[in-house]
Amino acid sequence: MSGTASGTPAGTPSGTPAGDGTPRRRGRPAGTGAGAGAGTRERILAAAREEFSAHGFDKTSVRSIGKAAGVDAALVHHYFGTKEQVFAAAIELSFGPALELPAALAAGDHEGMGERVARFMLGIWEDPVSREPLLAIVRSAVTNERAAAVFRGLVGRRVLARVAGELRVPDPEFRVQLAAAQLVGIIMLRYVVKVEPMASAEPEDLVALVAPTLQRYLTDPDVRPGAGG
Amino acid sequence: MSGTASGTPAGTPSGTPAGDGTPRRRGRPAGTGAGAGAGTRERILAAAREEFSAHGFDKTSVRSIGKAAGVDAALVHHYFGTKEQVFAAAIELSFGPALELPAALAAGDHEGMGERVARFMLGIWEDPVSREPLLAIVRSAVTNERAAAVFRGLVGRRVLARVAGELRVPDPEFRVQLAAAQLVGIIMLRYVVKVEPMASAEPEDLVALVAPTLQRYLTDPDVRPGAGG
Repeated sequence: MSGTASGTPAGTPSGTPAGDGTPRRRGRPAGTGAGAGAGTRERILAAAREEFSAHGFDKTSVRSIGKAAGVDAALVHHYFGTKEQVFAAAIELSFGPALELPAALAAGDHEGMGERVARFMLGIWEDPVSREPLLAIVRSAVTNERAAAVFRGLVGRRVLARVAGELRVPDPEFRVQLAAAQLVGIIMLRYVVKVEPMASAEPEDLVALVAPTLQRYLTDPDVRPGAGG
Repeated sequence: MSGTASGTPAGTPSGTPAGDGTPRRRGRPAGTGAGAGAGTRERILAAAREEFSAHGFDKTSVRSIGKAAGVDAALVHHYFGTKEQVFAAAIELSFGPALELPAALAAGDHEGMGERVARFMLGIWEDPVSREPLLAIVRSAVTNERAAAVFRGLVGRRVLARVAGELRVPDPEFRVQLAAAQLVGIIMLRYVVKVEPMASAEPEDLVALVAPTLQRYLTDPDVRPGAGG
């Protein structure tokens, strides 16, 4: 879970051909010079986010990203590698807000942990600016196995493993996943399927309702995954 | 929530042009006689399930369903109505197992309610025969707003409202949705995104872990949605 790339700066996925995330002069494919230059990488990344968000992982290609960015597909490969790697780099930005969760978790007393996690995560999903890119990622991950693998790796390394690192109990990763499951389900019913009355409930009411659940998963010594509960 | 069609037999959605769910001789579109006859409706329904399951709501059309069933698209419309209505009829069968949930809930003591719900729902998802069609529906509902609306209506009427009808507490629908959210999140993490260790956990361990959560939502008088928890 604490994968190899967890120390890599955002936007620089490991495994990109350039290695250090910057274009290299030598070895660049012939005929890709037209769109190159300062800001090219950022332009490709912006186009990738736009394409994946609008059309999903399935219907987006390295070629269509290149076209949207005004560069050759070979240059997209040059900067980012495979379609999965472009996807990883594109969605990583959307996880920005969630990266603050471990800090939010640590900043307060032990008893209020469940409540802080619930309020923090609902805050991210209540704001359309952070919600829409995440919804697009969920759609891709649910419909495509390769996108799910990228999503699983990023969420695992960047969010779940780090939250687990804040817990001082046995089986921290399983506990975090149980808490995450409660929140993911709320997100699905409230923001994706939009069932009432949950879709229109006050965020603070939801926080109060699920906080004890999260608190139990994250801190209760009687929660023992792998030992029959 | 207790919608108008809740008393309709499975496979006979309200709103179908034929009304009673059987083909009528008068008013059938011209040129659709080729594929008509005994079993035609069932053949179309089987083809629709296959098409929606394989390609999702977006990429399936009434035309492609007709083609797969060997009949004219007009005959599909004749039996089922709009694409949404074909979808509703096609996915309704997949909800068969879940329709037993209210009975499973009622069959036992009050204290074991959370455990019974958890075991029942995980049982449905552990079995690939019942899981795969449900996964296909989730994919369609997550990626298409119209499919989500059909899904919302069916799950609301057929499952959530009926479970809520078994509860003797205030706000039964909100409570059922909180419990459903916990289970939906487990389903997403375990069967869709497949994060470890949750994906490989023993079903009975999961039942034991989430049972207290479901029990609290379904029965605890201190859970008061709309009143700050």
